[in-house]
Amino acid sequence: MTQLHNRTAGQETNRVMTPDELEAALRAVGAERYHNLHPFHRLLHDGALTRGQVQAWALNRYHYQASIPAKDAALLSRLPTAELRREWRRRLVDHDGTEPGTGGIARWLKLAEGVGLDAAYVESREGLLPTTRFAVDAYVTFCREKPILEAIASSLTEMFSPTIIRERVSGMLANYDWVSEETLAYFKPRLTQAPRDVDFALAYVKEHARTPEQQQAVIAALRFKCDVLWSQLDALYYSYVAPGNIPPGAFVPEV
Amino acid sequence: MTQLHNRTAGQETNRVMTPDELEAALRAVGAERYHNLHPFHRLLHDGALTRGQVQAWALNRYHYQASIPAKDAALLSRLPTAELRREWRRRLVDHDGTEPGTGGIARWLKLAEGVGLDAAYVESREGLLPTTRFAVDAYVTFCREKPILEAIASSLTEMFSPTIIRERVSGMLANYDWVSEETLAYFKPRLTQAPRDVDFALAYVKEHARTPEQQQAVIAALRFKCDVLWSQLDALYYSYVAPGNIPPGAFVPEV
Repeated sequence: MTQLHNRTAGQETNRVMTPDELEAALRAVGAERYHNLHPFHRLLHDGALTRGQVQAWALNRYHYQASIPAKDAALLSRLPTAELRREWRRRLVDHDGTEPGTGGIARWLKLAEGVGLDAAYVESREGLLPTTRFAVDAYVTFCREKPILEAIASSLTEMFSPTIIRERVSGMLANYDWVSEETLAYFKPRLTQAPRDVDFALAYVKEHARTPEQQQAVIAALRFKCDVLWSQLDALYYSYVAPGNIPPGAFVPEV
Repeated sequence: MTQLHNRTAGQETNRVMTPDELEAALRAVGAERYHNLHPFHRLLHDGALTRGQVQAWALNRYHYQASIPAKDAALLSRLPTAELRREWRRRLVDHDGTEPGTGGIARWLKLAEGVGLDAAYVESREGLLPTTRFAVDAYVTFCREKPILEAIASSLTEMFSPTIIRERVSGMLANYDWVSEETLAYFKPRLTQAPRDVDFALAYVKEHARTPEQQQAVIAALRFKCDVLWSQLDALYYSYVAPGNIPPGAFVPEV
């Protein structure tokens, strides 16, 4: 009758943490749950995937990229001051760009084309794994419905992204001769955008999460967001690394 | 640059189908995508799972069962007439019962206890796979946000459930000596409730889906719902059948 389950750092504290203790607890969530630890990422970065498997990753990840402005706008619409909204608006600019062909979503589409996918097919989202859709859409819903503090905290996976981006870019360039620096152009601006976004969001969370309940809620929000990323890689691994598991209707790589 | 992807029955018709053709197209979705075709269900019914794996199934499926009244109430709240609301209200009674310990959710909890789980742990949803949560919550959101016709159509996976229930009950009783008929008491009432619910929902859909767009939308709604069920089994298979893949924080069976 016992159920073992992994306890997560910072999960059961009843006292108020100092802002720095809270930051440490948030970083511990990443150390335990960020998707750089997922076996699919190891395979991706180590050059162990086929081109079709990398295509499946690029295709599914497009839905995540293309949904970021939806979650940011949902949050922005609930921010109470022009100052906060201006701060958050930069994220919309980063992802949607200033003219056609610019911004993170357009760059991700270039990445998808660079690994051999048809842009219109990628944009149609037709071949998505259902699990990708459910996980990403859960993130948008979270940012639409949860308290502002938690919605902001859920963005903090960016604290952990510079490391994974460097690993990914160098690993993919070294290991796949059909991947060029131009194809991976998405990632370079993220190395400066992400830390800037984190500076604001982390300071906001450290200032506004003052009760034990709020502090546990922001830790849970970050854990939720790690789950969103992890679930997508579980589905990619299950569907495209193990043979014979592609769900009905999802993208089938060319053999 | 080609992307193969499975085309689904009834997907690209531009003319109005007769009600019977529409029903046939809906049944074809089930024949292609209902989760009785998933390898996890084969393992479950054939007795090929360990007790811990069956526990993981019961635990995760509890979130689905317990969320059914949420999706039904979300839909009910948008139905325009007392007649329609009374019809749909029966589903709330079926799942929530008439007093403590009755109804489908309580019976599922008995099933979970019967396979060795602690009821309070199951109810807490602490050990859920993130993918289970995302898939099930997507279903609730769908029924809250989509047109009534599509929300009703998404319930039509019940057309396919009597077969799977019979297979499941006989397979589990024959193959697991720690599973009793009492443990599986959840399923017996479903054999009469599901066809009754289908009679109403299918008649409603056949009557109200009159344009090609509406007909394609109800087929897509049923496909979406099949995806919700399929994604849950993908996650169970990936996490609990293949070794070493349990995501951080999820239920870990006793060895």
